[in-house]
Amino acid sequence: MSSPSPSGETPLSHRDQGRSLRHGSRLDSYVDAYAERTLGMTASQIRSLFAVASRPEVVSLAGGMPTIASLPLDVIGDRIAELVRSDGQAALQYGSGQGDPRLREQITDVMRTVGIAGHPDDVVVTVGSQQALDLVTRIFIDPGDAVLVEAPSYVGALSTFRSYQASIHHVQMDDEGLVPQALREALAALAAAGTRPKFLYTIPSYQNPAGVSQPLARRREILEIARAAELLVVEDDPYGLLGFSGEPPRALRADSDDGVIYLGSFSKTFAPGLRVGWALAPHAVREKLVLAAEASVLCPPAFTQMVVSRYLDTTDWMGQVKVFRELYRERRDAMLQALTAHFPPGSHWTRPDGGFYVWLTLPEGLDSQAMLPRAVTARVAYVPGTAFYADGFGTRSMRLSYCYPTPERIDEGIRRLAGVVEAEIDLVATFGTGHLAGRTGLGLPAPDLT
Amino acid sequence: MSSPSPSGETPLSHRDQGRSLRHGSRLDSYVDAYAERTLGMTASQIRSLFAVASRPEVVSLAGGMPTIASLPLDVIGDRIAELVRSDGQAALQYGSGQGDPRLREQITDVMRTVGIAGHPDDVVVTVGSQQALDLVTRIFIDPGDAVLVEAPSYVGALSTFRSYQASIHHVQMDDEGLVPQALREALAALAAAGTRPKFLYTIPSYQNPAGVSQPLARRREILEIARAAELLVVEDDPYGLLGFSGEPPRALRADSDDGVIYLGSFSKTFAPGLRVGWALAPHAVREKLVLAAEASVLCPPAFTQMVVSRYLDTTDWMGQVKVFRELYRERRDAMLQALTAHFPPGSHWTRPDGGFYVWLTLPEGLDSQAMLPRAVTARVAYVPGTAFYADGFGTRSMRLSYCYPTPERIDEGIRRLAGVVEAEIDLVATFGTGHLAGRTGLGLPAPDLT
Repeated sequence: MSSPSPSGETPLSHRDQGRSLRHGSRLDSYVDAYAERTLGMTASQIRSLFAVASRPEVVSLAGGMPTIASLPLDVIGDRIAELVRSDGQAALQYGSGQGDPRLREQITDVMRTVGIAGHPDDVVVTVGSQQALDLVTRIFIDPGDAVLVEAPSYVGALSTFRSYQASIHHVQMDDEGLVPQALREALAALAAAGTRPKFLYTIPSYQNPAGVSQPLARRREILEIARAAELLVVEDDPYGLLGFSGEPPRALRADSDDGVIYLGSFSKTFAPGLRVGWALAPHAVREKLVLAAEASVLCPPAFTQMVVSRYLDTTDWMGQVKVFRELYRERRDAMLQALTAHFPPGSHWTRPDGGFYVWLTLPEGLDSQAMLPRAVTARVAYVPGTAFYADGFGTRSMRLSYCYPTPERIDEGIRRLAGVVEAEIDLVATFGTGHLAGRTGLGLPAPDLT
Repeated sequence: MSSPSPSGETPLSHRDQGRSLRHGSRLDSYVDAYAERTLGMTASQIRSLFAVASRPEVVSLAGGMPTIASLPLDVIGDRIAELVRSDGQAALQYGSGQGDPRLREQITDVMRTVGIAGHPDDVVVTVGSQQALDLVTRIFIDPGDAVLVEAPSYVGALSTFRSYQASIHHVQMDDEGLVPQALREALAALAAAGTRPKFLYTIPSYQNPAGVSQPLARRREILEIARAAELLVVEDDPYGLLGFSGEPPRALRADSDDGVIYLGSFSKTFAPGLRVGWALAPHAVREKLVLAAEASVLCPPAFTQMVVSRYLDTTDWMGQVKVFRELYRERRDAMLQALTAHFPPGSHWTRPDGGFYVWLTLPEGLDSQAMLPRAVTARVAYVPGTAFYADGFGTRSMRLSYCYPTPERIDEGIRRLAGVVEAEIDLVATFGTGHLAGRTGLGLPAPDLT
């Protein structure tokens, strides 16, 4: 359950063997000068593989890039030109560390769609919600502090927690997301060891990577457990508005003003290239987040914030969200149909009702990371399950994204993947599992894989 | 010389007295849950004062906001609209963690103007150069690690170093910037105490806040000292192209490929609201910076990077830099003339040949921080000198910015300030210095003060 030693490849003892900072060396002359936290930052072993996977002939089911082709680029371009002409002096100048006041008001309107009555004073605008995650971790986590995360969890969050040397503890999920009883048990086990986790990190709606959602009753139960244990909840909600049926799920934050830090993002409802996200936090925590943000970037870009603000003001942004929903629903359908049609027995997968991802588990004996090079050779890519665990689990699983390829490409990709899996099953049946590569973590993946 | 205890106001012992995370409390129910580093993050005591200082009737000589009024907003708006129409799919999508490849090439062109022959592969684009500073600190600094900085130094850098719990050591400057002999002595004193600083942070050209510049001979001497001591140099150069006479000063990095991390920014040569800066680092360090950047924000905004890239491609950006130079030179002249005309004897100040700032030292017995409320009442604002020291020094000094107000306003502001100083001298002559407020640090100032 505890976090692995991500620094396995860098001998810690080197740090004590004196310094060898040699100017002019082609090796890393700073290897002995890095901070402890840096030893855990190693590039993903599969990055080079994904460089191949980005070739057009490969169907990538790996990346979490939204399809932004349906955005009205002409209109957006014109609106931005107007913004620069009329408000360029403000849009191009330094802004507030907390973020643009007008945008913070609009963000409270956006949050009302998931049941949250927040105050603009308690909103901090960030450089994507990844920065919000970084700032929350920065203000709460000392090296060795425990955090609870779902099993599996968002790879970008795991990277951030690792980079602050947190001890990461996974809590079981089922088809309805985080399991309350497993949360109780994790808290009890930590308490027995004399540890209190600093927070629970959860994605209650259309989880990344599992695609599952917590029903309302379960959300209430999780909040009740957190309240009783005085456990802070960090709720990450990039996909909340991208459900395929019914109303957007009610956020945890809607029923707990003081016990939840809510993280939101415009990356999936508008455009990720602007990097505009936010945190809604209890007032005192918000103050610390702003100070941490200022030490980190001074202020988020005024320009991108005002672009989002204009977009919300001048377009039917909710109409555009509905366009996205239809588009992703069609792709989700294509993926589920293709899995049913092509996949051999013994595999199983989740059936997401929103968001971007299906979580697939291979038959016993198969290893998704060992199989990846063969999949890329067969011109299909995915993210191996181990990326979403801090503890080496997930070898039989993988994340399949339906957010970016067209339905036709999704069908073709799943067909190719099924072929690879069938060949792999034959191989295991014939030779056993001895040929599989060692089970190592993925390190930090590239941004387009998160 | 060592850093102060920025956590002086928050009793550390509270952390060991059990947790009191009370949901529903209006107090900070998380006060015992924060990380050690967060205890040092306290809001500036003078923030509320600066809220008053931002009123139009106050001449603010405090902020470091560039004058961007001279930018051709119509042209820029049109170019951005074209960008969105033709390349919106890329500009609004996730990008690389290292930054846009085309922009990284252009950045190497920009750096050639200060003598640097860098490779685009070694450039990391960041959310303003403040993020570059944050990432460098993140990968090198463990709590308690020593860093060397100029005396005085950039307040935003001090905030960042503090937020990673660095031990900050100031090194003396004179009218030619960092004093080589003082650097030798600081290194020797640290070595005698068994400490090696992780890096020297320096702003060699038009320093913030002192306004001084290192001549070429001194730069060579500093590089020689660093080389001999195997001391990494972090060179911050936001103002290098904004000199008022002759060619831009040659960067330290131009004469040391492996011993210097160079930080650059488009905030002063184009527009700060885009938050586009960069680091040029030795290859292995660059790799760590990218991993840290990805854990921090996934990737910098593709959109703002492409806006800068288009701007560099389609406008006479160097011509615009020349416009800025003339504008700031005129304001520098206005400030120096006003100081000579209005200020009482006993004060002295630097005479910058570029950049944004004059560093003024008051007559013996005066305290710039204690005087600030009276200055704001007299409708003029500045940043007290203590903000630029980690160790409580700077009480007699202040930073005066000429970058934002018009020459007429600068003259009026200096006239008002001179009146306050004269009254203060009378007060000290009559009552002694007993009435002055306690000398406390400023905490973190607002972004527009940096």
